[in-house]
Amino acid sequence: MKAYSVKELLEGDKILQEVIVKGWVRTFRSNRFIALNDGSTIKNIQCVVDFENLDEEDLKKISTGAAIELKGTLVESMGRGQTVEVQVNELEILGASDPETYPIQPKKHSMEFLRENAHLRVRTNTFSAVMRVRNALSFAIHQYFQQNGFNYVHTPIITGSDAEGAGEMFRVSTLDAKNPPLSEDGQVDYKEDFFGKETNLTVSGQLEAEAYAMALGKVYTFGPTFRAENSNTSRHLAEFWMVEPEVAFMDLDGNMDLAEDFIKFVLQYVLDNCQDDLEFLEQRLLDEEKSKPQKERSEMKLTEKIRFVLENNFKRVSYTEAIDILKNSKPNKKKKFQYLIEEWGADLQSEHERFLVEKHFKCPVILFDYPAKIKAFYMRLNEDEKTVRAMDILFPGIGEIVGGSQREERLDVLKQKVADLGIDEKELWWYLDLRKYGSAVHSGFGLGFERLVLFTTGMTNIRDVIPFPRTPQSAEF
Amino acid sequence: MKAYSVKELLEGDKILQEVIVKGWVRTFRSNRFIALNDGSTIKNIQCVVDFENLDEEDLKKISTGAAIELKGTLVESMGRGQTVEVQVNELEILGASDPETYPIQPKKHSMEFLRENAHLRVRTNTFSAVMRVRNALSFAIHQYFQQNGFNYVHTPIITGSDAEGAGEMFRVSTLDAKNPPLSEDGQVDYKEDFFGKETNLTVSGQLEAEAYAMALGKVYTFGPTFRAENSNTSRHLAEFWMVEPEVAFMDLDGNMDLAEDFIKFVLQYVLDNCQDDLEFLEQRLLDEEKSKPQKERSEMKLTEKIRFVLENNFKRVSYTEAIDILKNSKPNKKKKFQYLIEEWGADLQSEHERFLVEKHFKCPVILFDYPAKIKAFYMRLNEDEKTVRAMDILFPGIGEIVGGSQREERLDVLKQKVADLGIDEKELWWYLDLRKYGSAVHSGFGLGFERLVLFTTGMTNIRDVIPFPRTPQSAEF
Repeated sequence: MKAYSVKELLEGDKILQEVIVKGWVRTFRSNRFIALNDGSTIKNIQCVVDFENLDEEDLKKISTGAAIELKGTLVESMGRGQTVEVQVNELEILGASDPETYPIQPKKHSMEFLRENAHLRVRTNTFSAVMRVRNALSFAIHQYFQQNGFNYVHTPIITGSDAEGAGEMFRVSTLDAKNPPLSEDGQVDYKEDFFGKETNLTVSGQLEAEAYAMALGKVYTFGPTFRAENSNTSRHLAEFWMVEPEVAFMDLDGNMDLAEDFIKFVLQYVLDNCQDDLEFLEQRLLDEEKSKPQKERSEMKLTEKIRFVLENNFKRVSYTEAIDILKNSKPNKKKKFQYLIEEWGADLQSEHERFLVEKHFKCPVILFDYPAKIKAFYMRLNEDEKTVRAMDILFPGIGEIVGGSQREERLDVLKQKVADLGIDEKELWWYLDLRKYGSAVHSGFGLGFERLVLFTTGMTNIRDVIPFPRTPQSAEF
Repeated sequence: MKAYSVKELLEGDKILQEVIVKGWVRTFRSNRFIALNDGSTIKNIQCVVDFENLDEEDLKKISTGAAIELKGTLVESMGRGQTVEVQVNELEILGASDPETYPIQPKKHSMEFLRENAHLRVRTNTFSAVMRVRNALSFAIHQYFQQNGFNYVHTPIITGSDAEGAGEMFRVSTLDAKNPPLSEDGQVDYKEDFFGKETNLTVSGQLEAEAYAMALGKVYTFGPTFRAENSNTSRHLAEFWMVEPEVAFMDLDGNMDLAEDFIKFVLQYVLDNCQDDLEFLEQRLLDEEKSKPQKERSEMKLTEKIRFVLENNFKRVSYTEAIDILKNSKPNKKKKFQYLIEEWGADLQSEHERFLVEKHFKCPVILFDYPAKIKAFYMRLNEDEKTVRAMDILFPGIGEIVGGSQREERLDVLKQKVADLGIDEKELWWYLDLRKYGSAVHSGFGLGFERLVLFTTGMTNIRDVIPFPRTPQSAEF
């Protein structure tokens, strides 16, 4: 007798075979029908037990969350909602689940409650669906880059460089926390620390990825990155995963093409491979929004929204055009924006991005050629000497999902920028070397992976699309 | 005219086409023959320039490391060592590379020198080959697990748990390093730290992966892990990547089968997909070993060694059998071991592992059923109450490459073990919950990814198989 996953059994080609299946009880009704799930699919398999022939002690233990092993015959089902079911001959309780104390009962739980039980929440339909979609997106990312000749690069997590410049960092240390060694000038003596210098958790693998792109041509990273920012919002995590491709000989136009093609590939992959999960998540979103006023509901269903992105070109708009649109927009004229757009050079807030994407263009937007002053030092200065070859991709409901640029490949210009920022050139000696020896046009971008998962699953809080979220005051599990 | 990668041009189906190719000069000889590489393959394409029609300034700049763009015709080559070459019509210097200062000259460099230039070393044949093989192994890992129904899980990097117990940890903090806030009892007040508690970098994602396996069935992690150990050896890194599958309803035998099948799959993938790189690395190893005395040389060539692993069953040996073999071995009797094996219960040192693998069995070995005392608290206690269902896989030349176990699924036994270690149960409340609700037999293992890359590439120092190694006193780049 062979053991099968629930997914294999539901494929329906094993009718009348004797099978073994192991999983967790989702529900048990009428002392007869077990809905069994093993994580292989969001669907349960119905298992029919003959309670008259069951040990009474065992019968009591068939409760939500219990792990059981069943032997029986796979037969066509007469019941509604399934085509096959298991006619159970033998049942073994592997691990009971006390109904009095098991937190994950078959009822609606608040998201807050489930976050506090992050070790068990993946046993719910919602979280198991989200995590399977997350898995599919992850693999699609690798598949896309591999079939396009990119090399996966593991850039360092612990960094000795403080010039990455993308945000506040976490310090990594093995020094005595209470009485750190001090140097003669009374400062903490990091020479005595593990790495002999001050080190932090990386905010981006870009600089190191550039070094690799300038040798291997096309590379990408996919790994954890960190921000020690006290942002307690539904869009920020202190620890999150980022995808960062970097390509030699590619300019900003190529970068935009790559980002759009890449995003469409991974979304198509999920449509093709996660139908059951998406169907569930779509219905979940509809149910969720029923209680909201009409105007706050999504205009499109989940899969419609994904298809819409797949079937339409991302709108490419220069920062300068965007400022014109925003300056002349109703919310600006009627002073409805919190930050009014008055002149070229203003940094765009999420209210402006949302207006452009959700009200004006109604599709994903790529903004490019931003003012140099509001962007990072490594971005390629345009001939106007005012703007840089930066791009941000804005998604409906999500905001910025991609930030990228063509990199400054000219040694003299980059040195000047570094000097203007007061960064010691020695800090970036190796990064400058890339411009000294065999420099070339190159570009890349970073995609915040959890924001992509948010978009694809229709979840609304970023803490609900990563297994164990890290946020201010929270590092449980 | 279309741009192609070197790899595409070498496929040879574009003969007589006008092509564009961009890359870096590896060598330039006779003012005529450029060997151009773009990272897409270890092979260079020969590009033939007509120096009489070239700008003299440009001609001077064609030096090792320079980035150039060429337009020309792909033709069959009359020269030795290549089947096609580019007859160059137009040449543009994208970024020069001053031969007086460029560190990566076409000659042999010491590994130490190249480590100091880790941002450039990937421009050498050796490191580009290693990193392409590393990439292929990474993707093979994902492919194996995906096609076998596993879900990729991102377990947290920053952990609030200090019970992972696999080694020394790095502290993660945003507190003032010099004057941390103190609580009333005079200790550092981590309540004021970013996460409101003391946090560290993870040493393993296993415990969290178990939570996910007990819902999704089959999961794996593939991410960075950390050890703050002052081990300055050729086999240890402070930051390294680990693969950790975890499977519900699987016992130790299944775990051994999985590990063996998995390793063979990824090695086969590299044989199938990295022929050119392996050929180069095999020759490199032969050259390297020429200077060694005969008995220190490898008995097999690189690909022979990989094939040997593929074609033979891993030898499964209980710890008890292994101790018998070691006790009666020549080096033990002749007191050649540094640590003599005198009785059952001894922890095996790498000299013993090497003897078993390289001298006695001469193949990969899976040791299992270790004494409980020398293994982690979460491993399944056998009925003898002396041994646990642990397994280590030992590889020739590498030592331990996999460590795994069946996990203790019985709440009472696990609680006792936790208590015996003096760990507060509250620290592990969620891990114990997994045994309280729907517990079942489950197993998993961890594979040190860099050790796998070492084995597959024939490199000898672990610092040379990761892009930017982190070791004591070293976090440059």
